Amino acid sequence: MKKNIAITPPMGWNSWDCYGASVTEDIVRKNADYMAKNLKDFGWEYVVVDIQWSEPTADSHQYHPFTELNMDEYSRLIPAPNRFPSSADGKGFKPLADYVHGLGLKFGIHIMRGIPRQAVHNNTKLLGTDKTARQIADLDSICHWNTDMYGVDPEKEGAKEYYESIFKLYASWDVDFIKIDDIANHYPKKEVEMVKNALDSCGRDMVLSLSPGPAKLEEAEHLKQFANMWRITDDFWDQWKPLYEMFERAEKWCIHSGPGHWPDADMLPLGALRLDYPDNNQTQFTEDEQYTMMTLWAIMRSPMIMGGDMVYNDDFTLSLMTNKGILEMLKKARNSRPVFRKKIDGREIVLWTAFRDGGGKYMAVFNLSDEAATFSIDLSETEIDERDLTELWSNKVWEVNGDYIEISLNPHGALGFICK
Amino acid sequence: MKKNIAITPPMGWNSWDCYGASVTEDIVRKNADYMAKNLKDFGWEYVVVDIQWSEPTADSHQYHPFTELNMDEYSRLIPAPNRFPSSADGKGFKPLADYVHGLGLKFGIHIMRGIPRQAVHNNTKLLGTDKTARQIADLDSICHWNTDMYGVDPEKEGAKEYYESIFKLYASWDVDFIKIDDIANHYPKKEVEMVKNALDSCGRDMVLSLSPGPAKLEEAEHLKQFANMWRITDDFWDQWKPLYEMFERAEKWCIHSGPGHWPDADMLPLGALRLDYPDNNQTQFTEDEQYTMMTLWAIMRSPMIMGGDMVYNDDFTLSLMTNKGILEMLKKARNSRPVFRKKIDGREIVLWTAFRDGGGKYMAVFNLSDEAATFSIDLSETEIDERDLTELWSNKVWEVNGDYIEISLNPHGALGFICK
Amino acid sequence: MKKNIAITPPMGWNSWDCYGASVTEDIVRKNADYMAKNLKDFGWEYVVVDIQWSEPTADSHQYHPFTELNMDEYSRLIPAPNRFPSSADGKGFKPLADYVHGLGLKFGIHIMRGIPRQAVHNNTKLLGTDKTARQIADLDSICHWNTDMYGVDPEKEGAKEYYESIFKLYASWDVDFIKIDDIANHYPKKEVEMVKNALDSCGRDMVLSLSPGPAKLEEAEHLKQFANMWRITDDFWDQWKPLYEMFERAEKWCIHSGPGHWPDADMLPLGALRLDYPDNNQTQFTEDEQYTMMTLWAIMRSPMIMGGDMVYNDDFTLSLMTNKGILEMLKKARNSRPVFRKKIDGREIVLWTAFRDGGGKYMAVFNLSDEAATFSIDLSETEIDERDLTELWSNKVWEVNGDYIEISLNPHGALGFICK
Amino acid sequence: MKKNIAITPPMGWNSWDCYGASVTEDIVRKNADYMAKNLKDFGWEYVVVDIQWSEPTADSHQYHPFTELNMDEYSRLIPAPNRFPSSADGKGFKPLADYVHGLGLKFGIHIMRGIPRQAVHNNTKLLGTDKTARQIADLDSICHWNTDMYGVDPEKEGAKEYYESIFKLYASWDVDFIKIDDIANHYPKKEVEMVKNALDSCGRDMVLSLSPGPAKLEEAEHLKQFANMWRITDDFWDQWKPLYEMFERAEKWCIHSGPGHWPDADMLPLGALRLDYPDNNQTQFTEDEQYTMMTLWAIMRSPMIMGGDMVYNDDFTLSLMTNKGILEMLKKARNSRPVFRKKIDGREIVLWTAFRDGGGKYMAVFNLSDEAATFSIDLSETEIDERDLTELWSNKVWEVNGDYIEISLNPHGALGFICK
Repeated sequence: MKKNIAITPPMGWNSWDCYGASVTEDIVRKNADYMAKNLKDFGWEYVVVDIQWSEPTADSHQYHPFTELNMDEYSRLIPAPNRFPSSADGKGFKPLADYVHGLGLKFGIHIMRGIPRQAVHNNTKLLGTDKTARQIADLDSICHWNTDMYGVDPEKEGAKEYYESIFKLYASWDVDFIKIDDIANHYPKKEVEMVKNALDSCGRDMVLSLSPGPAKLEEAEHLKQFANMWRITDDFWDQWKPLYEMFERAEKWCIHSGPGHWPDADMLPLGALRLDYPDNNQTQFTEDEQYTMMTLWAIMRSPMIMGGDMVYNDDFTLSLMTNKGILEMLKKARNSRPVFRKKIDGREIVLWTAFRDGGGKYMAVFNLSDEAATFSIDLSETEIDERDLTELWSNKVWEVNGDYIEISLNPHGALGFICK
Repeated sequence: MKKNIAITPPMGWNSWDCYGASVTEDIVRKNADYMAKNLKDFGWEYVVVDIQWSEPTADSHQYHPFTELNMDEYSRLIPAPNRFPSSADGKGFKPLADYVHGLGLKFGIHIMRGIPRQAVHNNTKLLGTDKTARQIADLDSICHWNTDMYGVDPEKEGAKEYYESIFKLYASWDVDFIKIDDIANHYPKKEVEMVKNALDSCGRDMVLSLSPGPAKLEEAEHLKQFANMWRITDDFWDQWKPLYEMFERAEKWCIHSGPGHWPDADMLPLGALRLDYPDNNQTQFTEDEQYTMMTLWAIMRSPMIMGGDMVYNDDFTLSLMTNKGILEMLKKARNSRPVFRKKIDGREIVLWTAFRDGGGKYMAVFNLSDEAATFSIDLSETEIDERDLTELWSNKVWEVNGDYIEISLNPHGALGFICK
Repeated sequence: MKKNIAITPPMGWNSWDCYGASVTEDIVRKNADYMAKNLKDFGWEYVVVDIQWSEPTADSHQYHPFTELNMDEYSRLIPAPNRFPSSADGKGFKPLADYVHGLGLKFGIHIMRGIPRQAVHNNTKLLGTDKTARQIADLDSICHWNTDMYGVDPEKEGAKEYYESIFKLYASWDVDFIKIDDIANHYPKKEVEMVKNALDSCGRDMVLSLSPGPAKLEEAEHLKQFANMWRITDDFWDQWKPLYEMFERAEKWCIHSGPGHWPDADMLPLGALRLDYPDNNQTQFTEDEQYTMMTLWAIMRSPMIMGGDMVYNDDFTLSLMTNKGILEMLKKARNSRPVFRKKIDGREIVLWTAFRDGGGKYMAVFNLSDEAATFSIDLSETEIDERDLTELWSNKVWEVNGDYIEISLNPHGALGFICK
Repeated sequence: MKKNIAITPPMGWNSWDCYGASVTEDIVRKNADYMAKNLKDFGWEYVVVDIQWSEPTADSHQYHPFTELNMDEYSRLIPAPNRFPSSADGKGFKPLADYVHGLGLKFGIHIMRGIPRQAVHNNTKLLGTDKTARQIADLDSICHWNTDMYGVDPEKEGAKEYYESIFKLYASWDVDFIKIDDIANHYPKKEVEMVKNALDSCGRDMVLSLSPGPAKLEEAEHLKQFANMWRITDDFWDQWKPLYEMFERAEKWCIHSGPGHWPDADMLPLGALRLDYPDNNQTQFTEDEQYTMMTLWAIMRSPMIMGGDMVYNDDFTLSLMTNKGILEMLKKARNSRPVFRKKIDGREIVLWTAFRDGGGKYMAVFNLSDEAATFSIDLSETEIDERDLTELWSNKVWEVNGDYIEISLNPHGALGFICK
């Protein structure tokens, strides 16, 4: 681990949930502007351009198969200048990164594992080796949902040089964050190691984020060593079922989070989503579900990457992203763990605790049932000795009767406490 | 949970590892005397008579199949007076419990799930019901390693009354701890619930301990609700392999420990063991392995039940059982978790941390390799902010250089730290 | 293989389906009389007394657990004289066997794998060894549905002598057929081999039949070597579902039938069944289902063991058991195999063919659907070159148009053809 | 089934084993000439051009990834004229098929499932629909060992028209046999059905052969309905291990062979193989293994497709292909089945029988051990009543002593008998 990378769970914004493959430089700049103005002080910093920035005709969440991508002479994808005008004349993402850096933020990009199919079909050159694209490709290793790339066979001569050549390019653009796709679930270990080694030798610190999930629990120690964050689910969207299922994933992965290595519950589908579609643009989560998501992400210490176009944030959405107590929990929770998951009066209640760096504890309580729940918690049973409790969403000091507190939760609702 | 039961992991002594089925009242009294004199102040309190105390001819770890057990008219096993003289004249374990209580300690017994086969074969009476032994037995439910009992079919009329009748008997003896056997691994849920309900209605608090393991992780929430401790392994003995394997079990179960419910790594095979055998009576663990076991049990918060005959304790064994820092870790560790398990210079190193109730943290480091290990730990990576570290076995203040400490570990060795 | 044993699939009668454990000598004699008079000429020959003939109080299909069985001084079960009067005075089944033999028939008995529990509990003597019952028992090997026996551990000294002692006893009674139970499905190979070796050395030829199923296909070659017939299903009763499922079992096992070794589809639940129950005494199969069963058993060459009390046979039942063509198919079919199982106009149709010893072929057609079916069969596709077809149940010469025949089948109905 | 197709197992020659992808028209003609002269009278008839006849640069068993294939304007592959000169000027395979037909033989070609990748990348036209190549392709359905094609998505409009267009083309060439590849093991059912329907509507009878295996046993009835032959193994070569393993496959599949539908044990790797390699060109099978292969293929009724270049046949190879008795067994065996597979004196011996169309039986005996075997067979146990036995490879009348014959087999050797 490089100590200055991802010491706490990364926080930022990503263009996928709102624009799919079709984001443009203008949108990125506007979201960066918004973040700098409204969110930077709360810890939000990464601005990430998601998939297919080299595809000139991308216009939605649907990919155009076999369309021509923008590529340099060494088989490396470069931004499509019609969508990212500042990238013209071989400047790549450097001007946009400069802009983001100028706002005091950090800049990230998405890449696909492998080498462009068009490079393999045309058998183009590679940088730093006399091998060619076709010679390093693994022709049986394709992505199941996108036709851009073939996998790279790590055993092939020239493979290492190819991966080094792309990370050198990203370093020359001053990129701070790489989200690499089609790699976390099937987890081609040798290719992961080659990616990480190429990053480590590129001369610039970058967060390495692996997608999509679910990553395999049995690879936890390898993931901790070779990545800064990795997806523990398939793509997460604004529906209750996957949010409900996240609790089990969180239980399994919670012992594996720590400085530089974070199990990632995926982007936050909040606010304005799917803007390439005519309607259904607002998150389908209820407000309670949004509290639940933010509270779980915070206490389990998942990276928080906003998925909606922030320019359209309403007050509620902005309030979720600027709750200082919750965001402090994300940074200061330690040894987070589920304490119980049980039926109380027929409601499925989950309770987590964590210690707080600097003193005190955190406690989060969730109602996973479709009905409201009212019950007492015996703090001594949960090993909470503190009796000064403040609920973080309401900023309300909670009444404690001896060892007991009373809880009322809406369906799918959550409360988060700081205990001092 | 009854709040006064097993708030911290139970500590005590059990007769199995040293005497198998053959323990006698005299041995129990001597071990109780020893505990009262040497260990009580360190938190050790339960004195537990293990299996087959109703078997008059028991003489080793090998059971005598189909031998006649001592039983009352209501199909309830009672102590064999030739082995437990004070139990004569229908007094049962009451006199021995009185003796143990008089020393300021607590008294426990082992029972087998089910109803005696001899009661079923002879179809004897039950207390509080006109049903008979054969009518409540599940004839296809036998223990695979002992012929004493048939299982009880919880659906049968009279089954509830039988379990209530035995717990009433134990309550009349003033028993404080029940270790119930042949139940934790295959886990007949309905029978477990019947046992717990019988205990709850018997009028006396008793710790409920389930054996043998491995219990199933997917039953964790049920176990937390219906038992105070449950075995997470098959019988554990003084060999490195099962100790090594305990680390994986500890990782899986650590989120499920808490007041009143403790995953149990089994008895401590320390000191004088297998005294029914002519030789091989001393634990086969190296001193380093003993440190490792005690450190792991403490930080994962497993119950600590001494397995050796304590009367024969040597100084080293006694020192293990009286290390105040380690035993305080057992009681005060909170949110314990493994932080990493990785190869460092080819050695397999495991590191756990926990918070300390009342302030500070604990950290334990283990070398699972057969070779000695020397390496540095970056405390900031393990989220230990404290810089005042004392190693608990050596009581040595540890040198901290900035964020780093240097560790040297013998093969299979361990260190435990309190961090303030 | 002994060449004079089970050269064709055994045919006979068994007392289980009609009387469970409660059959008496009188009933056996009456069924033997009936067989001699009505069925002997059609090949029926074995008269088999099923389970618990040593249990004096047996009165139904329900066993009495732990009841005292009739046993000799060497731990060997012997008939209960109150139920089998001729067995008194140590004569065992010899007088009854003599009676059956006098009718020109053969005599068989059921036994349970293992050694009586009462012998083990009382630790009684064995013949031909100084070991005792408890010393050869496998105390963890019990039958899941009957409490009479413990398994015998083949590794124990004295085990071989025990099995030899019981087969010597059966040989002294002139038994011709042993149905051994609690052995075919879990298939304790070493115990099976010990049983077969004891039989082979007892001085008398006996058919060895293993129950209950399902036997495992992967043990087919071992079964062929060590048994004459073995059950391929759990107990089979007069319901369509298990009859439907028999077709898949028949497909899998058909290549494993041959002289001396027969996959056994279980007894024929025809006519008067369950006579220990007040009603529901007649087979629940429709007439079509009975044709289907008899036709399948015949072409797949399963042993045919009548399960009903034959004294109550009605004309239809008797007609099923005396169809010469069907019974000739059972004996003369060779290389039987399913040719297809397919949907024709939405009906699930199965077709089998076999060659006929001595010339010609057999063909059986089944309608497994709940609706009637009408369709054509192209004989050339089924490799039937013969054009002279007689249907065996109707004894009707079938019209053949070129290569085609027309078939109409009732729901669950069957036709069987001899093709010359 | 069309009755005139594959009534008995197809016999022929295929270019793969000897030339991989590199066969030329000249070689095909020479093998056709050889077959017409030496083998036609023995039933050999299909001359099949294997994979990549549209690839101009193919030169070995190794494919050239992404090389340009010869394709017409409707996305249909056509022969490369540099390798198949008579195909020039849009004539396709018609002239070569005419030549083969002129010799009294039949002509077949290999195709890959799907649509050429180059058609998809260039999005070319299809015949009979306004959809284009990219619109019917399934981009996630690729062959794992060859880059020529994408799968076709049967749900897409235009897919049916594409498959019809290629079969119409093959019909216009007068093709008699289609070996379709990348389809039998993973078995995309809907695509198989689309292929069969396209064939059925093309106006010409063709044998449909599916590759590569292993096909799934649970698809047997679907395969019987939609194909004439299907591979039951992965590519089979001249090594003992896969030949040994074929016995188990033969056991499982034997009940599924019949007129028009044949489980296929793959080509016969005999004589001159791998002629694109500098050495190792002669089959590695021993003579005994070749007898074993031919005997097993014959009695199990697998298609027999010669894999070696027949022009180089030595006398032994030719003798294998012209043994009238063995080839008659291939055609006349009925209801073939394994009778036993057992150890005799430590040798693993397999025995099959079949009935013979027209009278008599076949019997084949195999020694699967590495040592020679000598033993007796009791013909009555195998249900062989005939006593006039002729061994087919030696044409020797075998001595029968009562029911017994004596067998001596070399390691991996076989004998085949006709019994009358």
